[in-house]
Amino acid sequence: MSDRVYLNGKFIDKEKAAISPDDRGFYFADGVYEVIRCFKGNFFCFEEHISRLKSSLSKIRISYNGIDKLSSICKELIVNNNLENKYANVYLQITRGVSKRTHNFPGKDISPTIYIIANEKPPNKDKSKKGIKAITQTDIRWLRCDIKSIALLPNTLLFQEAIEKNAGECIFIRDGVITEASHSNVMGVKTGVLFTHPDNNLILPGITKRFVFQICNDLGIYVKETPIGNEDIYSLDELFIMSTGDDITPVIQLDDTKINNGMPGPMTRQIQREFFKNTYKKLAGEKNPWF
Amino acid sequence: MSDRVYLNGKFIDKEKAAISPDDRGFYFADGVYEVIRCFKGNFFCFEEHISRLKSSLSKIRISYNGIDKLSSICKELIVNNNLENKYANVYLQITRGVSKRTHNFPGKDISPTIYIIANEKPPNKDKSKKGIKAITQTDIRWLRCDIKSIALLPNTLLFQEAIEKNAGECIFIRDGVITEASHSNVMGVKTGVLFTHPDNNLILPGITKRFVFQICNDLGIYVKETPIGNEDIYSLDELFIMSTGDDITPVIQLDDTKINNGMPGPMTRQIQREFFKNTYKKLAGEKNPWF
Repeated sequence: MSDRVYLNGKFIDKEKAAISPDDRGFYFADGVYEVIRCFKGNFFCFEEHISRLKSSLSKIRISYNGIDKLSSICKELIVNNNLENKYANVYLQITRGVSKRTHNFPGKDISPTIYIIANEKPPNKDKSKKGIKAITQTDIRWLRCDIKSIALLPNTLLFQEAIEKNAGECIFIRDGVITEASHSNVMGVKTGVLFTHPDNNLILPGITKRFVFQICNDLGIYVKETPIGNEDIYSLDELFIMSTGDDITPVIQLDDTKINNGMPGPMTRQIQREFFKNTYKKLAGEKNPWF
Repeated sequence: MSDRVYLNGKFIDKEKAAISPDDRGFYFADGVYEVIRCFKGNFFCFEEHISRLKSSLSKIRISYNGIDKLSSICKELIVNNNLENKYANVYLQITRGVSKRTHNFPGKDISPTIYIIANEKPPNKDKSKKGIKAITQTDIRWLRCDIKSIALLPNTLLFQEAIEKNAGECIFIRDGVITEASHSNVMGVKTGVLFTHPDNNLILPGITKRFVFQICNDLGIYVKETPIGNEDIYSLDELFIMSTGDDITPVIQLDDTKINNGMPGPMTRQIQREFFKNTYKKLAGEKNPWF
C-alpha cells in the first residue's frame, strides 16, 4: 500500500505528490521544516516544534495561516499510514511557494507549499546502547543556523564524510569551538559539568536539547551554556548528541580519540534513562530501556 | 503557447513538468545550477559555463554523464521557445536526484534530476545606462560560495532587503571586506586601479568577471585581485557589478553614499563599451550601445 502524504490541502498517495519545478524550495532552498517524533500515537513536544516552525517561518518572512490545522493533519497522517502503534517521525516542510524564478520575494498572492509525511522510525537501540563514533569538520554553514531551513547542502556533504569514515555523526567546529552536529545538538561533560553551545545564530535551538535541560534540572546536573573549545575537545569525560531522530546518543570516539575508554559515560546514561522514562515509557508504555 | 522545458531526458510543456517531493533539491538544496546568456541565438561563454557546472557537480560529488548533451539541449530549447532572434537566458539545474529523505548520499543507482528552461530576458538598458543603488549587508552565506549551489536562501533574503530599499543589488561584507553581491560579482575603482575579491571559497568564480579581466587586459587597465576593505568602501571612485543577467551595471550609490556624484564612472563606461562590442554587437548585431 502506498504511503499517504499531505500536500497543499490534500491527503494523497505519495506517488501522486508532485512539486512544481518553479517551487522556491526547489530553486532557492526558500523554505523551512520540522521533524516531530510520535511514540505509538503520542507526539512528543508537539507544541514546541510548532512554535519553532512559526519562528523559522517568521525569520524568513513566509506567511502561513494554516498553523492551527497542522496538529490534526499530523494525527491524520499517523492514522492513515497505520502508525498509531509504532514509532514514527512526521516531517513537515513549508516553502514560500511557486513562482517564476527571481531572487526577490514574489507578490503577496503566492501561497506557501505545505508538504507533510509520516514514516515509521523505530528507536536505534544499538546506537543508544553502544554509542557512536563521530568525526569533526569545520562548520562551513551560513550564519543563521537558528533557522531550520531546507538549505541543508553543507549538512549533507559533511554527514556523508562521517558515513564514509564509519562514523555516526559529524560534529562541527567553528572558530575553535564545537557548535553542533550535522543534524543534532552536542553536549560534553567535563569534571561533572555539562557544557553545550548557547542558543544563538550559530546553532539550532534544539527541542530535545531543551528537554535535556529540564532533565538536568530535575537531576541536579549543572549545565553550562559555554561552548566546548579546542583545548577540551579531545579530553572530555563524556560526549553525546541529541535530536528528534537520534534521542540521546553517546559519542564514544571523536576522530581518533576514545572517550571514557570507548564506553557511554555515567552522566550520559543517567540522562538517557530519564529521557526514556519521559518518552518511551510514559508515551508508549515501554518498560525497560535497551541501554 | 506554453513554454517548453527539458526535464530528465524529455522536452515537455512547462505545465507538465513535475518534481518529486523526494527530490534532494527540494529537501536539501542538494544541487547546482548555471544561467547562460543567449544573444539572438548565439550563446556567450557556453563552454565556460559548462566547465563551471562540471566543477560545481564535482565539488558536491554528483555524477552526471550527460554533460556532452547539454549544448544541443540548450540550443533546442532556444528554438522550441522561439528565442532565436531574442535575448534569452537558459537556466540549468542539476540535483542529486530522487530518494527517501536521509542526509547521507543515496546509493549509486540514483540518477540526477536535470531541469533546463529558456526565457526571454532583454537587456536592462535603463540600469546599464543610469546605474543602480546598492545596499550593503553582512555576508551570512556558507563558506563554499565557490560552488554554484541552489542553497540560495541567504541570497534571496538579502536581495529582498535591497528591493525594499529601492536598491538594485545587495553587496556583501565579510570580515570587513566586500566579497561579492547577492547574484553578481563586484569591482571597484580607486585611483585608476580596479579592485575585486580574489577567487576563493568566499565567492563564485564569475564568468562575466573573468571576461572583464580579459577586457581590462586589452584596455591596459590594471586589475588587482585584492578585496575592497571597509576603509575604502565609501570612498571609491567607481563601483560596478557584473553577472550573466546584469551584464556590467554601474553602482552609483552605496547605502547613503553617492559614488562619482551619482554618475557611472569613465572606467566603468569604457569596460561596458568593450563588453558591448564583444556581446551585443558581435553576437547579436546591435550597432549602438544604450549607455
